[in-house]
Amino acid sequence: MKALPESYTLLAVESSAGPASCALLRVEEGRETLLCSASVNTRLTHSQTLMPMIEDMLRNAGSSLEAVDALAVAVGPGSFTGVRIGVAAVKGLAFPNDLPCVPVSTLEGMARRFEGLPMNCDILTAMDARCRQVYTALFSLQDGVLTRETPDEALSLDELSQRLAGREHPILVVGDGAALCCTEMPWLRLAPAGQRDQSAVGVARAAVPRLAVGEAVSGDTLLPVYLRLPQAERELRRRQAGEQT
Amino acid sequence: MKALPESYTLLAVESSAGPASCALLRVEEGRETLLCSASVNTRLTHSQTLMPMIEDMLRNAGSSLEAVDALAVAVGPGSFTGVRIGVAAVKGLAFPNDLPCVPVSTLEGMARRFEGLPMNCDILTAMDARCRQVYTALFSLQDGVLTRETPDEALSLDELSQRLAGREHPILVVGDGAALCCTEMPWLRLAPAGQRDQSAVGVARAAVPRLAVGEAVSGDTLLPVYLRLPQAERELRRRQAGEQT
Repeated sequence: MKALPESYTLLAVESSAGPASCALLRVEEGRETLLCSASVNTRLTHSQTLMPMIEDMLRNAGSSLEAVDALAVAVGPGSFTGVRIGVAAVKGLAFPNDLPCVPVSTLEGMARRFEGLPMNCDILTAMDARCRQVYTALFSLQDGVLTRETPDEALSLDELSQRLAGREHPILVVGDGAALCCTEMPWLRLAPAGQRDQSAVGVARAAVPRLAVGEAVSGDTLLPVYLRLPQAERELRRRQAGEQT
Repeated sequence: MKALPESYTLLAVESSAGPASCALLRVEEGRETLLCSASVNTRLTHSQTLMPMIEDMLRNAGSSLEAVDALAVAVGPGSFTGVRIGVAAVKGLAFPNDLPCVPVSTLEGMARRFEGLPMNCDILTAMDARCRQVYTALFSLQDGVLTRETPDEALSLDELSQRLAGREHPILVVGDGAALCCTEMPWLRLAPAGQRDQSAVGVARAAVPRLAVGEAVSGDTLLPVYLRLPQAERELRRRQAGEQT
């Protein structure tokens, strides 16, 4: 695996749900500068939009893949297809030069974009997992310092509501499951447009401390992280269990 | 000027300094959804990058100019050339269908992206105006509600420092003059990467309440807002004044 220079350029990819995004972050002496970014939140499939979006972003910034020293990708939880597309894209981008890769929790990536803002609140990350379930994790932000409060989990809206009872801070909810959570728990604060979606900028920022402690892996070993089996496999197992009884 | 439909799609452009960005915001029954966005923060000139970036953004989102109902643009303060490029681009985009246009203060656009976040702080917007001056305006954010505290001004760093003395809240500083302000006033909180630059998303969000009250104008009448005369004109006037004495 290629060594990481002291100052480096990091390409991050996020395609774990409906929205998809990419970002190029420059890190020099610990200072982070966003060089360019792009996002789409439409009904198009990421298999068509992700790679052209990355290519256009790099070209419009006068950059190229040759300038990229490391990669970061949201590895889940999320849409099975979306996560696979993002992970496969990053495996491909990493391969020619065996670039170091950082797998990032989709949920952590969502919370990480707020790190450094002078906010005192909880950040609830929520992705729509269908069937009144969400993939979710709770973070707290205290004067800009982000702390994870719960692991990535698949919870029903009822379970989530019980979990959140008694939290004192305002709770900001982000992610493509945020609006769903607000219909059930109207006391949550829905993040505004432009701050709500999954974001490659957050994925990039989550990767920086990991790169600093050498936690990168080769693209070969990147794997999606699913909190549940895909629906097809769940149904297969249910049928198989039924046949055996 | 074309009438604005009740639900509409707004294209926003921001190129008033080094970074440039564009965003497409959908507004339905008052709810704002970011459909796509793109940003670059490199040394390339916006005259080369801005229009291809807008075109790529729309294409990657499966959208087009035909889907755009209104336009918003950061009209300054900022780099004279940058502001002119953005305003000229939006004039051109508005022309074929005489789309309604909203001129937005660059500084307000920067602050507006934080509206709706559960923060209690001041937001200092600052653009590097050279010669130890900044274009700046102060906003306060109280539990998500944004209020303008000062008009857009060109101030020296010393004047700005005096203005800010005695403010009690944490002061978040954003914009391409943010790092400069922090070197002089280390008590300011520098916004993190991805939240720091001028942003078309903020320009779009600033335009929404103005469109709601019919404050749009025809592209013909859009004008850059300069807080100072361009350096060439300042020097000409200085020379002329010298010749007369």
